[in-house]
Order: sequence, then structure tokens, then C-alpha cells
Amino acid sequence: AVAAPAIAQSAPTIKWRLASSFPKSLDTIFAAAEVVAQHVKAATGGKFDIQIFAAGELVPGLGVLDAVKDGTVECCHTAGYYFIGKDPTFAFDAAIPFGLNSRQQNAWLWEGGGMELLRDFFKDYNIHNIPCGNTGTQMGGWYRKELKTLADLKGLKMRIGGLGGPVLARLGVVPQQIAAGDIYPALEKGTIDAVEWVGPYDDEKLGFNKVAKYYYYPGFWEGSAQLSLYINQKKFQELPKEYQQILEDACAYAHLEMQARYDIKNVNALRRLAAAGTQLRAFSKEVMSAANKEAFAMYDEYSAKNPKWKKIYEPWKKFRDDELLWFGVAEKSFDDFVHSTRGGKR
Amino acid sequence: AVAAPAIAQSAPTIKWRLASSFPKSLDTIFAAAEVVAQHVKAATGGKFDIQIFAAGELVPGLGVLDAVKDGTVECCHTAGYYFIGKDPTFAFDAAIPFGLNSRQQNAWLWEGGGMELLRDFFKDYNIHNIPCGNTGTQMGGWYRKELKTLADLKGLKMRIGGLGGPVLARLGVVPQQIAAGDIYPALEKGTIDAVEWVGPYDDEKLGFNKVAKYYYYPGFWEGSAQLSLYINQKKFQELPKEYQQILEDACAYAHLEMQARYDIKNVNALRRLAAAGTQLRAFSKEVMSAANKEAFAMYDEYSAKNPKWKKIYEPWKKFRDDELLWFGVAEKSFDDFVHSTRGGKR
Repeated sequence: AVAAPAIAQSAPTIKWRLASSFPKSLDTIFAAAEVVAQHVKAATGGKFDIQIFAAGELVPGLGVLDAVKDGTVECCHTAGYYFIGKDPTFAFDAAIPFGLNSRQQNAWLWEGGGMELLRDFFKDYNIHNIPCGNTGTQMGGWYRKELKTLADLKGLKMRIGGLGGPVLARLGVVPQQIAAGDIYPALEKGTIDAVEWVGPYDDEKLGFNKVAKYYYYPGFWEGSAQLSLYINQKKFQELPKEYQQILEDACAYAHLEMQARYDIKNVNALRRLAAAGTQLRAFSKEVMSAANKEAFAMYDEYSAKNPKWKKIYEPWKKFRDDELLWFGVAEKSFDDFVHSTRGGKR
Repeated sequence: AVAAPAIAQSAPTIKWRLASSFPKSLDTIFAAAEVVAQHVKAATGGKFDIQIFAAGELVPGLGVLDAVKDGTVECCHTAGYYFIGKDPTFAFDAAIPFGLNSRQQNAWLWEGGGMELLRDFFKDYNIHNIPCGNTGTQMGGWYRKELKTLADLKGLKMRIGGLGGPVLARLGVVPQQIAAGDIYPALEKGTIDAVEWVGPYDDEKLGFNKVAKYYYYPGFWEGSAQLSLYINQKKFQELPKEYQQILEDACAYAHLEMQARYDIKNVNALRRLAAAGTQLRAFSKEVMSAANKEAFAMYDEYSAKNPKWKKIYEPWKKFRDDELLWFGVAEKSFDDFVHSTRGGKR
């Protein structure tokens, strides 16, 4: 049976407010919400109008989840791992250390059972979640001193977000929670020793290269970092079916486009940073291996005490193993060869 | 100014026909067109209805481009490299040997200037193109005998699509064009020595493993292979703006989802093939390097004689170099480490 063409008779005018966790200056991420609003508006001839508010305009950047849960705003654009204080399980919707890369995360969400698991989890927060952007693998941050051995992590005061904090804490790092605007002075004064943020394009704007010389990679705690639209469930259910579909597809477009923007914008930013004297450094195998071991030990501990974590982690882990099997064959051997033809240039 | 809410007054009932280049049995690719049709229908309350026809139902699988160009059908779902006989430039919309991986292709299209270049190219064919799916890196195909040296390529009769054919021909391979249904018997009888098709999931269905033992990777001529919706330009322009937006976003959703489907379905198919005795083999560095050299030499020859090719290839090449610079830092070092923790299991 074909659905009745209800839209022609009854397309209602709907105005929503979207609270972003991000400032407008973080333009690559912020734009994903703008793209959603533009597409939804264009697809409905202006009838479905989503007004975007930057962090702090309506609610604080990290207050957006509660605002959506309580129905204060209809939706927000944020990253799940901002809410690990409520439950670490939120991190699966953004990034967990040594997790999935951007494409694997998409595979998990769309065809690997991830979307169902996450939507079930988010129901407890009155939220309907839709993926909306990814940064790809982030950089490992800015350090005032070189990290030569694992011992150099001991006592390192570092601004770091998400589950990277508790993992690095197990190796002696002292994670710091510092709002974006306060990081630069803290690093400049030496109140902190290191900061991870996003990648070349965003990091350059905050000027970290002026006060820290060493720029490490990869940000192994964010092999990809996904953003999402969180929508009050009741408000979502009240939308006409047509608008629900339009919103979902607009998010898919924004999701694709944000990854593309980062993949482009990071190139020239990296070149500018290198030209201005930034020293690129790879994390040592010793550091990565120790962190990898601690991360999976921590996940097992979470599973033992948090049923919500366990319910997602167990199939997620199996999915990850499967994906690495397949990616290790065609995809990685292609990438390895193509990169090898560049003669190791960086 | 906000657009007038024309949709409520005037949303027209529109019926389109979509000719697919693929049989229904190639379900992962075929589904992308079905997803587009489902989403467009849902987003318009059934008013915009796209009926899908498998290869051969309305027009032959490789006749779809002309059918769209001439307005016989409104749109088709196909792969650009099927039309390299008209102009090799079509291949940029699908895959060229040693080209971009799936994510880099997206970056090129959405933010790297690729969409503008391709749309300009497709105008000459009365076509508005929208990306609609990707397979990721394909496998390198099935071989009755092992390829031990470059010399083993000499005289090898191989079914291969796209620009992989002319590249391998420069190394002595004799490329064969054979329709899907005829490949298996040709390989069984030894009329051909090898065949490349897609990857484990699709290849298994055609049963190549029963008549060829060695399964090589990667398909370096398809580091990713993109599918597209080609729409008759006049028909696209006649759509209400709302429907244009709805169609574009439905394609973005289908584009994401198809890559995710392949990333999931290939895993178990690969396991089944390996369990049934298929021998996985990596192409040697010697073969890959020789093919890489011939590919780029061929691209330069195309540039010298084909202005349309040159117009896209030159910025494409610069884009590829840029992307490899950035991907070589955070993304690849993350993937390399994660794969290393599996201890080389395959």
C-alpha cells in the first residue's frame, strides 16, 4: 500500500530550536548543524525551520543533552562522549580509544547493528539519535616537551576529552577538563603540559602551536569522532513521517559532508603548521601498546559493572574484530601500497 | 528571505523510471537504487514515485546512459567507468587505477572540487549526476594459476572492467569484456584465465571459487568504485526544488549505506570462501609497482590528447597528493597500529 500523499494537504509549519555544543568558531563541526537546517528547509519549502544556537546562547555547550531530554529544546548537535560522566556508554556514539575508524563506525551504525543498540540506549534519555558528522582520526595533541618513553607520561597534566582521559590516567597522565577558551592560557603558563583538541584545522585556530612545539599523532583515543543530532523523542514522533525522513536524510548528507570538509581543511592547516616550526612526532609503539592494553582492560572492567556498557561493548568488539579481518585484506593493502609510492614523504 | 512553502499548495505527483545497470541478484548495489526510491517516496508522502527496472528490463545494462541522455528514462543507476568507450574521463566518477579510496573519493566530490568538475563534464551528456554508493577497495580477482612474477601476466586472458583493462594490457594481459552470466563458463572452460568482479560477497554468488583457486588482492584498479545516479538534466530541472533536495539527500543516505553493506557482507563471505579452500594471495610489490607506473604514464598520455580528461585529471592528481599527505599522518598511523595488534592474522 502506498502512503497517502498527506504532505500536500497538511504539511505543517514547524519551528525547532537546535542547541549546538560548539561555538561558531569551530566552523567545520558547527556547519554540520547548519547544513541539516538548510536541507530540511529546502526540502519542505521552508515549512520545517530549525534555528541553530551556538554553545551558550540557549544552554551551555555541555547542558544540551539535559535540555533535549527535558524538552527545553527540540534537538541538539553534540558528541556522545561529552556525557561519559552520566554513563561511559555514551562514548560508543562518538569514540572510544582504539575504536573504529570513520568508515568502520558508519558500517557499525548502518549495517552492523550499532544504530539499534544506540537507539535503545538513548531511549532512556528520551532521545532519538541520528549520526551527524565525523572528524576522522584526530591528532594526538600538543606537548611542551617530547615524549620519549612511557615514563614521560607520568604526572603529565593534559587537557583531554572522552574516554582517552581515564585510559591515559592509568598510565600516569593527570587529565584536565578545561573549556576551549581557557586552554591556551593554561598551556602558555605551564598550568598544563599538553592538550589534545581535534586536528590541524581546528587546533591552528586556537593557536596551540605558539606555546607547544611537539604535535603528536595519532589521537588513538579518537580513531574517529562522530557527532550526532539528539532529538527529543516526543518531538520526533510528533513530526509528520515525511519530515522524519527528510530530517534523517539531511543528517546523512551532513554526516558525509563534515568528514569531507575535515579531510580537505586539515591538509593546508598541517602544511602551515609545519612551515611555522611545529615538530610532528609519532607516538611510540611502546606508548600505543601500553595504552591499548589499558583501554581494553578498562572496557572489561566497565562490562563487569555496567550492564548498559556490556550490552553494546560485546557485539561492538566482535564487530571490530570482523571489520579488521576484512579491512586488513583489500582496503589496507591498497592504502599501504599507495602510501608506499610516496617514498615515506610526510 | 525564506522560500514560499510551495510544497503544501502544489506538491505534484511525479512518476519516474530508473534503469539500473545491475541485475537484482547483485543485491548490495541494486539496493542503493531501491533505498533512494523508498526514501524519496517516504519524504513526499508517496507523491514522488521512482520505479526501478533491473538491467535489461527496459534497456540493456550498458545502454542506460544513452537512455537517460535521450530522455527515454528519467534516470539510471550505474558506474561511470562502463562508459570509458565514449570517453575515459567517465572513469573519474567511478574508479581509476591507483585512485582514491572510498573516503578520499567522498572528500574529492563534496569538498575537493570533484563534484563541480564532474557535473560540468556530464552536462555534455544532458546529465545531472549524484553519487550513489561505493564498494570500497575491491578484490583483485580469481586466477586459475598463481601469479609469481610480472611475466605471468603476459598473455593472461582476464575479464576486467574499467581502466584496469588498458593498464594491465600494457603489462601483457589480454583484457576480455564478458557479460556477468557468461564469465563462469568461460573461466570453467579455460577460455579465460582470470576474472575480477567485485569482492567476496558478490564474487561468491557467481561461484568463481569453484573454478579458480587463487583470490588476489587488492583490486588496485578499484581502490574504491563509486556508483551514481544519472538524471536527465531537463527532468531534474523540472522537479520542484523541494524534490531536488529530497532526491539529493536520499542519494547521500544510499551512498553511505551501500558502503556500510559491503563492509559488513564481505566479512562472512570471505570467511566462507577461505573455509571452502580459496587461497588468498597478495599481488607482489613487483606487479603493483609496474602497474602503478603504467597507470600514471597512461594518464599523462590521455592528458596530452583529451582536454576533458586533462581538465579533471590535473586538479584530481593534486588533490590525491594532498590527501595522501594528510591521511599518511593521523589516519594511517592509527589504522597501522590497530591492525598490528591483531598479530598479522588474516
